[in-house]
Amino acid sequence: VAELRLPVLVFALEVLVVVLYSVFVTYDDQTNALLQNNKTQPLENTVYQDYPFFADIQVMIFIGFGCLLAFFRRYGFGGMVFNFLTATFAIQWAILVQGFFHFYYDGQIHLGVINLINAEFACAVVLISFGAVLGKTSPVQLLVMALLEVPVFGVTEWIVVEHLKINDAGGSILIHLFACYFGLGVTFILYRPSLNEGHSKEGTTYQSDLLSVLGTLFLWVFWPSFNCALTLRGDDQHRAILHTFIGLSASTLTAFALSALLSKNGKLSMADVQNVTLAGGVTVGASVDMMISPAVAYVLGMLGCTACMLGYKYLSPFLARRLRLQDQCGIHNLHGLTGLISTIAGICAILLASEETYGPSLYQTFSYRAPQQGDPQLGELQKLIPGLEAGLGLGGVLTGLVLKLPYLASPTDEFCFDDELFFNVPLDEDQASESQEPRCSETQITNHQYILQSKPADDVITS
Amino acid sequence: VAELRLPVLVFALEVLVVVLYSVFVTYDDQTNALLQNNKTQPLENTVYQDYPFFADIQVMIFIGFGCLLAFFRRYGFGGMVFNFLTATFAIQWAILVQGFFHFYYDGQIHLGVINLINAEFACAVVLISFGAVLGKTSPVQLLVMALLEVPVFGVTEWIVVEHLKINDAGGSILIHLFACYFGLGVTFILYRPSLNEGHSKEGTTYQSDLLSVLGTLFLWVFWPSFNCALTLRGDDQHRAILHTFIGLSASTLTAFALSALLSKNGKLSMADVQNVTLAGGVTVGASVDMMISPAVAYVLGMLGCTACMLGYKYLSPFLARRLRLQDQCGIHNLHGLTGLISTIAGICAILLASEETYGPSLYQTFSYRAPQQGDPQLGELQKLIPGLEAGLGLGGVLTGLVLKLPYLASPTDEFCFDDELFFNVPLDEDQASESQEPRCSETQITNHQYILQSKPADDVITS
Amino acid sequence: VAELRLPVLVFALEVLVVVLYSVFVTYDDQTNALLQNNKTQPLENTVYQDYPFFADIQVMIFIGFGCLLAFFRRYGFGGMVFNFLTATFAIQWAILVQGFFHFYYDGQIHLGVINLINAEFACAVVLISFGAVLGKTSPVQLLVMALLEVPVFGVTEWIVVEHLKINDAGGSILIHLFACYFGLGVTFILYRPSLNEGHSKEGTTYQSDLLSVLGTLFLWVFWPSFNCALTLRGDDQHRAILHTFIGLSASTLTAFALSALLSKNGKLSMADVQNVTLAGGVTVGASVDMMISPAVAYVLGMLGCTACMLGYKYLSPFLARRLRLQDQCGIHNLHGLTGLISTIAGICAILLASEETYGPSLYQTFSYRAPQQGDPQLGELQKLIPGLEAGLGLGGVLTGLVLKLPYLASPTDEFCFDDELFFNVPLDEDQASESQEPRCSETQITNHQYILQSKPADDVITS
Repeated sequence: VAELRLPVLVFALEVLVVVLYSVFVTYDDQTNALLQNNKTQPLENTVYQDYPFFADIQVMIFIGFGCLLAFFRRYGFGGMVFNFLTATFAIQWAILVQGFFHFYYDGQIHLGVINLINAEFACAVVLISFGAVLGKTSPVQLLVMALLEVPVFGVTEWIVVEHLKINDAGGSILIHLFACYFGLGVTFILYRPSLNEGHSKEGTTYQSDLLSVLGTLFLWVFWPSFNCALTLRGDDQHRAILHTFIGLSASTLTAFALSALLSKNGKLSMADVQNVTLAGGVTVGASVDMMISPAVAYVLGMLGCTACMLGYKYLSPFLARRLRLQDQCGIHNLHGLTGLISTIAGICAILLASEETYGPSLYQTFSYRAPQQGDPQLGELQKLIPGLEAGLGLGGVLTGLVLKLPYLASPTDEFCFDDELFFNVPLDEDQASESQEPRCSETQITNHQYILQSKPADDVITS
Repeated sequence: VAELRLPVLVFALEVLVVVLYSVFVTYDDQTNALLQNNKTQPLENTVYQDYPFFADIQVMIFIGFGCLLAFFRRYGFGGMVFNFLTATFAIQWAILVQGFFHFYYDGQIHLGVINLINAEFACAVVLISFGAVLGKTSPVQLLVMALLEVPVFGVTEWIVVEHLKINDAGGSILIHLFACYFGLGVTFILYRPSLNEGHSKEGTTYQSDLLSVLGTLFLWVFWPSFNCALTLRGDDQHRAILHTFIGLSASTLTAFALSALLSKNGKLSMADVQNVTLAGGVTVGASVDMMISPAVAYVLGMLGCTACMLGYKYLSPFLARRLRLQDQCGIHNLHGLTGLISTIAGICAILLASEETYGPSLYQTFSYRAPQQGDPQLGELQKLIPGLEAGLGLGGVLTGLVLKLPYLASPTDEFCFDDELFFNVPLDEDQASESQEPRCSETQITNHQYILQSKPADDVITS
Repeated sequence: VAELRLPVLVFALEVLVVVLYSVFVTYDDQTNALLQNNKTQPLENTVYQDYPFFADIQVMIFIGFGCLLAFFRRYGFGGMVFNFLTATFAIQWAILVQGFFHFYYDGQIHLGVINLINAEFACAVVLISFGAVLGKTSPVQLLVMALLEVPVFGVTEWIVVEHLKINDAGGSILIHLFACYFGLGVTFILYRPSLNEGHSKEGTTYQSDLLSVLGTLFLWVFWPSFNCALTLRGDDQHRAILHTFIGLSASTLTAFALSALLSKNGKLSMADVQNVTLAGGVTVGASVDMMISPAVAYVLGMLGCTACMLGYKYLSPFLARRLRLQDQCGIHNLHGLTGLISTIAGICAILLASEETYGPSLYQTFSYRAPQQGDPQLGELQKLIPGLEAGLGLGGVLTGLVLKLPYLASPTDEFCFDDELFFNVPLDEDQASESQEPRCSETQITNHQYILQSKPADDVITS
């Protein structure tokens, strides 16, 4: 029966995870008591380098994304709570998947806080893709999407990082581009023609817009931690923080200017404040730890923001109507276009890198994971990007096909963007508080809600 | 007169605190300028180890708890603001009480950020107990509760930590069990039979549920800092972070599955998302720094969550009706049952600890404050638990009796869960914004509110 | 045309900033790869000392201030979003202005995270002044205010810190007093007599009050980071954290007592909870790193809070009616009166400082930037304060005159405190959700809103 789908899937995933954890996951040499001795300096444990960034990224994932995605009028629970559910599972799963690729030796995955940071990056990928299908998917579908997307990401990450050795500190190439094209692939398959005519529940409210801006602000404030968490310690990390701050702050100003300029009446749109302000964080990503100069970080923020804004204004409607790409949160604008600009900027920064600018640390920064000028791998990378997009989109398409399978509790068009389908929603304050004092339209509303609540879930999901 | 009760009590408490501070509180050797010399390394000051965890716990106490407790429809101010008031006083008071037990020498309490961390733990105890009586108590009662609970906790902590030397890094035994049974004792005495039939203001709204989930997310994100703040530095602290994250993330998935499974219509309940997801943080507490393995942390999260959920579903209604235990936020489920599981897990982890697993650091970790296998203190601990519950409950019962004294401004049944009694509440937006355009039921509502606001507080509190 | 004012100004400012960045701003020796060598210890980079405090202050600026200023019923977008816009620009601009005064050598401004911390302090100044004119200014006016206020602050800071060498760790003298008197100067010029009779949109709602308290809590929790970020490392910073916490927590209790005591019906006012609780953070500021003792920090918190509360109750109405000082958020109470108390306390703490209390570190703490007893500079400082107030007020008056220039899109009296003027505001939930089920007053409301939205901006702003 329909009600059992979510519990059964979750329990199955939990059993899978706990069995794999018990067989494969052990402590790494920073968490294993057995490997400490009287020469170990407790305060030199890597936890003190990694945990502050991990905590910041946790705030971004659970609170930043959670609030940002709660912008729909009647899908606040869905946005915030499905984000919580999906993120939690994606991290657990990524610990295993990335563990096999990056932290596996002696027959075991070795675990420390550094694995959690990596897993949160994989989780961010899933949450970005979630943005493309927000409000149109059941929690069962979201968990299946995470189940499939994390391994595809794990393989891609392994190829890009280990094999091509691309320097991509802020993850603009890997995280944002991957998440965007994968998400577009999924939403291509989950196309719902009726939604192109608009949906009565697709709007926002005053409160939901404020909550969503709050999410934006959390993402904005902690984005430097996200972009610098995996860079080299020292001046590299210091630059990553500076550039991210500068890029974000340039894109924020630009977003305000463009939002007023491109609206019909010169007023600001909250959707722009919620999304476009963040574009700079992505655009500086691929070159965030390089010596690009503060001014260039500023220009990258402006460029990324402009591309993102024009995308929202002109490209998204086109994609939705002509290419069946209904991109609910506009991830193609905020993560795709900006990711492409970031990639180009990253390649330029690598080409322009010289010992004159970097001194002896050139080889340290770039031996880390970047191809040198003239390196055949660089050409490989340049050729790779278009193919990558297609490839990632394909992964998304295949995942979308799985999500269209019956039994995954996809909501009907009518119940898109509607918490009633998945949550016991409280009666509204004004409806409940004056239940003794009938208001003109109250009877109808209340009836309407009771009907919804008593309707068996089967009738309103496509199975 | 009734209006003066809160100011008079607060001023009296402030005078008490400031006199005791001026007589007894001085700087510790990390904050006293006189004790620094030219060999002092400023960057080795303990403030850099303690402050990050302190700041995280501050967020949990003031923002996490504050939002979580704001879930009632018309008691959002009360939940968030009384939490603020009670927490602030409890910390000030705990600095003195714990100071006498743990930081007292040379006739003075010596103060540093480490004292603040300890005081926030005592404060968490008070706030958990507050959960049992949320909406049914006046701020005067809450301050008196903090005034009495902190010293009882201080004595218990001193016995458990100093005398029994129990390893209880995450505080599951001390903090959660103490807070639960004390709170149940209080609510037992403050029993209000009429509330068993439900109360018209006991529900939530869409907005209050979202705000409360936001509080949950802050607690969730920073819980690793709470559980690791007082563990040994180095790998112990690293493991505490990992286990807390894993335990929480297992209990979160389980909470979603059980919420859907146990509801009538297969839908998720926001109360479960707000509370049950957090169970894993408590369950891993007592063994959080030990070598329990990631998989066991996962299992502990699942077990704790299951116990917590079944408690909400079956035990709480029983306790309320049969045993006069009206546990408003279900602290017996989230802190009591999970605390018991955590204690058992902690004892097992101690019994199973061996040099094979820990290496030479075994003696360091457990000499810290844990009994060894065969140690008579361990038997003592095992015998202690049931007695502890009764003892703590007794402290709560006595406190409850004090709270029932006249002059403490306890709200009448009718004004439970209602901000009107203690706050100047703004007119609702829809009521106020169209005051020129009469709506059908407006006149009545407005009158109703003005009546409330002009009513002297005496009439609606039991004095 | 009116719609172009904001975009044109923002683009002009961006071009200005990016040109100046590209010509003048380079990396400092902690961020410049060229200056690292094989003796550089990456983990000793100052980013690890500065970034945690920077991140905390970011939360205060963007989230704390943002939520706190969102308390008006229909100006939540304005409060939160204009705070975002103004803060972003003020920081960019302060990096340049302060850079020329403090970080300029070899013909360049040298940039690291420490510059960002300083710039956020300058930004806090602008945001405090913004509080005086909240709801009565267009974003264009706010940007112009930031453009003018930051350089005036930069010069004042340079005089006070470099020349007078005042120890003002928490910035109570510089930041709070400056911001207050500058803001009062601005609002003096922007006086709107009609607002003294009250404004239909000046109230709060249940939700907006909660959001604003959330902002207060973020400011409260991270205030220790603000007050200690620029103190000497080690015990000085440790004391700054302790004193700030103690001062805030004393002022919080006092605020609750006074709020109940001074209200007509003995109930608490949310405006007091939102503002007066924070007074202690300012009052301890000027002596925050000195050996003032915990009890004195407590007393300072109580005193600051009392002055602040009495200011709200008695002084603000007087200032508004008699002196044309409409101080919307009461910054004269929260930053002016408390800043004066803090200054006096700071002077006393300097006068009382002795080698007996501080040991050899006396010279270190006070050589940093404080005059010694008997030092002529101290007398200079004492004489300076009254002149400073007048001087700062004058800067504000001149800025206010600029803001009154035509073309800055100042809202008409009717559209003060109203998001409709600057934002595309979503229809309210209850209006939108039942658009098929007409409610009694719906037709009028909807029409009213459409009229607003289609009205050209020119008609409702004074140009």
